[in-house]
Amino acid sequence: MAEQVATNITIHEGTVTSEERLKNMGQKGATFWFTGLSASGKSTIAVAVEQVLLSRGFHAYRLDGDNIRMGLNKNLGFSQEDRAENIRRIGEVSKLFADSGILSIASFISPYTEDRDAVRALHEEAGVAYFECYIDVSLEVAEERDPKGLYKKARAGEIKGFTGIDDPYEAPENPELHIKTHVDDLETCVQKVVDFIDAQNLFA
Amino acid sequence: MAEQVATNITIHEGTVTSEERLKNMGQKGATFWFTGLSASGKSTIAVAVEQVLLSRGFHAYRLDGDNIRMGLNKNLGFSQEDRAENIRRIGEVSKLFADSGILSIASFISPYTEDRDAVRALHEEAGVAYFECYIDVSLEVAEERDPKGLYKKARAGEIKGFTGIDDPYEAPENPELHIKTHVDDLETCVQKVVDFIDAQNLFA
Repeated sequence: MAEQVATNITIHEGTVTSEERLKNMGQKGATFWFTGLSASGKSTIAVAVEQVLLSRGFHAYRLDGDNIRMGLNKNLGFSQEDRAENIRRIGEVSKLFADSGILSIASFISPYTEDRDAVRALHEEAGVAYFECYIDVSLEVAEERDPKGLYKKARAGEIKGFTGIDDPYEAPENPELHIKTHVDDLETCVQKVVDFIDAQNLFA
Repeated sequence: MAEQVATNITIHEGTVTSEERLKNMGQKGATFWFTGLSASGKSTIAVAVEQVLLSRGFHAYRLDGDNIRMGLNKNLGFSQEDRAENIRRIGEVSKLFADSGILSIASFISPYTEDRDAVRALHEEAGVAYFECYIDVSLEVAEERDPKGLYKKARAGEIKGFTGIDDPYEAPENPELHIKTHVDDLETCVQKVVDFIDAQNLFA
């Protein structure tokens, strides 16, 4: 990696091939799309999975509310139209990361099947690997956790259109991976995700 | 890279640090923003630079009309507002790639100083390296090249608001790199860009 060599250059026709990219990154890129209720543990698991992958030398990057909602999607609200556009843009960006050879971990509630299926479709059209990871939690446990007090506010009517309370969460019917955070502890959940990623034969 | 190890995991608090990312990628990420007239050679140079960087083991990815206009920005037109939003979104995505440790090469006409300065500002706010690369060409040479016949159509009034003809190109005043494609041949231009990237001390 990153070794200085003589600066004489040779240019070949055409763009970088998939084979060149695979060799360069030592892995094939893919999107791992984490969907689940607020407080399901999506982001906590995503953070830990990214750590584990990097500590093993794999190249991964995480897309979540922190780096998307204040940046790329800061001009979107929470109407159904804006939620769809939010997920569409994230799907497009995750596809680009995966195309670059990165393991992209996108962690968003993404409650609507139609929006998630559109993200899957755009990956398929581009020939980019896509894995839907359902980070499942019972509503009861999510409400108990409620780390930001959002469920409480939603129950009190202070937040409208909150997923799981007065807006639906359409659970994935055939996710590639199904994690149950109300059953397994964090370490077990992370282990299951990492084992799943290992099993995809993405590594050169 | 990509070596299988024992699957027992250790999770530490917090997200991946900049140091971990630098070690993982063997380089610091950055955005190289190519701006210039249509037919300036931006994309040709970007394609070649990406090839050279990958052949040396660096990790790079190219953002250009091909992977943006049909995807992330397919819902944008060419009004001044949409052009600004086009560049804003690309700037945000390039920032994410650079943050992930990739050398992001964004190749877009981006004719307005205000839009380019906004992209620079969002990189600076995030502490992400940003280099404006002015891919300069005289209008005369660009019109001679006219590989897609767009200048001809613009001169004939068949395309309105074409940059350089009836819409301004605001040339960068203080770009970090200034390449003149009406002076140097392709190989020389690519060499200059690669030498410039080498000189930024981005490699671990």
